[in-house]
Amino acid sequence: MNDTYDENEGALPPALPVHLASPTTQRALRVQHQVLIATRAFLGAEGFVELLPPVIGPVTDPGVRGSKQLDVDYYGHRYKLMTSGIFYKQASLLAFDKIFYIAPNVRAEPVETCSTRRHLAEFHQIDIEVAGATRTQVQAVAERLLTHVVGHVLATVPDELTGLGRDLAVLAEVLDEPFGRTTHAGAVAQLHGLGHPQSPDAEIDWEGEELLSHKAGQPFFIDDYPKGSRGFYDRESTTEPGVLRNFDLIAPGGFGELVSGSERESEYARIVTRMRETGENPAKYAWYLDMVRAGIPASAGFGMGLERLVRFLTGLDSVWQVNAYPKVPGLVSP
Amino acid sequence: MNDTYDENEGALPPALPVHLASPTTQRALRVQHQVLIATRAFLGAEGFVELLPPVIGPVTDPGVRGSKQLDVDYYGHRYKLMTSGIFYKQASLLAFDKIFYIAPNVRAEPVETCSTRRHLAEFHQIDIEVAGATRTQVQAVAERLLTHVVGHVLATVPDELTGLGRDLAVLAEVLDEPFGRTTHAGAVAQLHGLGHPQSPDAEIDWEGEELLSHKAGQPFFIDDYPKGSRGFYDRESTTEPGVLRNFDLIAPGGFGELVSGSERESEYARIVTRMRETGENPAKYAWYLDMVRAGIPASAGFGMGLERLVRFLTGLDSVWQVNAYPKVPGLVSP
Repeated sequence: MNDTYDENEGALPPALPVHLASPTTQRALRVQHQVLIATRAFLGAEGFVELLPPVIGPVTDPGVRGSKQLDVDYYGHRYKLMTSGIFYKQASLLAFDKIFYIAPNVRAEPVETCSTRRHLAEFHQIDIEVAGATRTQVQAVAERLLTHVVGHVLATVPDELTGLGRDLAVLAEVLDEPFGRTTHAGAVAQLHGLGHPQSPDAEIDWEGEELLSHKAGQPFFIDDYPKGSRGFYDRESTTEPGVLRNFDLIAPGGFGELVSGSERESEYARIVTRMRETGENPAKYAWYLDMVRAGIPASAGFGMGLERLVRFLTGLDSVWQVNAYPKVPGLVSP
Repeated sequence: MNDTYDENEGALPPALPVHLASPTTQRALRVQHQVLIATRAFLGAEGFVELLPPVIGPVTDPGVRGSKQLDVDYYGHRYKLMTSGIFYKQASLLAFDKIFYIAPNVRAEPVETCSTRRHLAEFHQIDIEVAGATRTQVQAVAERLLTHVVGHVLATVPDELTGLGRDLAVLAEVLDEPFGRTTHAGAVAQLHGLGHPQSPDAEIDWEGEELLSHKAGQPFFIDDYPKGSRGFYDRESTTEPGVLRNFDLIAPGGFGELVSGSERESEYARIVTRMRETGENPAKYAWYLDMVRAGIPASAGFGMGLERLVRFLTGLDSVWQVNAYPKVPGLVSP
C-alpha cells in the first residue's frame, strides 16, 4: 500500500477537480480503459454484438435491497432512469443471439450505503445476454471474461497496478485455478459455521458476502438463490420450486460480488405469476408483457459491475475511487 | 434502394419487437458495432483515454434550438439528464490531455422534430476533448476519424451496406479528397445565392443545412458561427468579436450535420460574461464555475452524432432506423 491509497482509505470523494487531479484516480481510470478494451475484444471475438442501452424508459428493473428508482417527466409521461437494462437485453435477442452493453445505471441507494465502499448511485455494468443459453454456459463466459481481463491488465498496465499498491502475484492467482462453486444453501451453512446469522430465505447480506469473499483464494460462484431474494425475471427451477436458476460471482480478498446472472423467465404466464408474487403490478409493464406474449427467446445472462471489477483489479478501498465522476449515495456531487 | 429501405421511408418506428426483428435494423446495428470498434481503435491509437460520462448532474449543457432538459429528483435535489457532457469533458482534462466518451444524451426535442429524420430524444455522441488544442487540430482529428471509420466499414461490413442499398462508391469518395471548408458567412451567402432566406446572425436552419449538404460532394466544415447561435462555452474570437472559434462538419448527400465542435472558453471572467449574455444564471453552475475559477486547461473538442454518422454510412432515411431502441421526439416508446 502506497501513500495515495492510504490517503483515501475510508474517506468520501473530494471535490471533483481534486479527484480528477489525483494520481490514484488517473491510475484507476487507465486500468478501467484497459478493462473496457479487453472486455470488448473478448466479447467481440466470442460473437457478441455491442448495443447501446437506453437511459430512460416507461419501466425498469424493480431491483432489490432497498434502492429507489428515479422518475423523469418524458413528454407528460412518467419514465424511469434505468436501474438495469434487463428488459432491453431480452428484447435485443429478437435481433441477435448474443449481445452486450456497457450500461450506465442509476439507483438511488439508501444513504446508509455511502459507507459500504461498494455502492455508487451511478455505476456501470458489463451486461450480457445469450439466447438459448444455460446458467452453466453464461458462467463459463463470466469465467473466461474475468480471466481474460485479468490477463490483459497484468500484461498492459502492471505499473498502474503496482503504483496503486496491488500485489500482482495475488491477481495472477486468478488465472491459475478454476473458479470455486457453491450454492446459496452451502454459503448459508458456511456462514452459520462462522457464527454469522444469515437467513436461508434471503439474499446473502453484505457482511456475509464480505466474510466469504475474505476466506476465498479464488473467485467463486454461488448458485441457486431462493425465490424472493431476486427479481421476477430470474428463472425458477422447474424441478426445485422456490429455487432460482441464478448465480453470483464473488471475488476473493473481501471485494465481494462482481457478477449477478441467471437463466431468464421467458414465458408470459410464468412472468405474470412471478410479477404478482414479487408484488409488481403487471399493468405497469405493458410494452414488456406485450413483447413477451408475442414471444421472446429463452436466455441467460449476467451483469458484471464495472466499478467493482476495477476496484478488485486495483485493490482500492472504495468503488468511488475508480469512477471518474463518483456519485456516492446521498451526497450532492457533480 | 431495396425493399427494406422503401418500407421504412418517412415512417415512424414500429413497435420495438418489430423494429428489432427487422433485417434493416440488424444491418444498421452491425454497422454501428463496427463504427464503435473503429472509433475506439482510432482514438486509442491517437492517445485518447475513454471515460464513461455521467447520466445525471446538477446542471447540463443549456443547449440550443428549443430542446428541453429533463429533471430528476436526486436525494431531494433537482438534477438534470445530460444533454451533452461538455462540462465533464472540460473537467476531465484535469486528469488526461485527450479524452473521449461514447455519451448517451437525452434532449426533449420539440414534437415537430419527429419528422426531421435526424432527431432522437435519446441519442449518442462520440465526444472528444483535447487540452491545449486549436480548432484546426480537432478538425483534423474529426477528418481522420471519419475517414478511418468509412474505411473500416467498407472493409468489414460491405455486405451490410449494400444490403441496405448504399452505393459503396459514393461512400468511398469520402476517402479520396480533403474535406471542404467554408465559414458561416460563406454558407449564408451561398444559401442566399440559392434563394434560401438564411439569417446571418443565427444557426444555419435545417432546410439550409440540408440544401448545402445535398450540393456537396465531400464532407465540409463550416467555421465561425456567430455569437448567440451556440452555447457560452464555445470560445469567442479575441480578434473578431462576435465570431465563435467553432465549427460544424456537414456530410454530403443531404445527410446534414455530423459534428459540432469548438475551441472552449476556459477563463472564469469570460465564461461568466458569456453566461450572462446567453441569459444563463451563473449561480446555477456553482460546481462548474468553482472548478473554472481554480483553473482548467484551454481546450478544443467536438461531438460527432453517432446515429447521424451511422445513418450517413448506411444511407438510411431516418436516424431512428439505426438506433436499437428509438425514441422519436414526442412519441411514447420503450
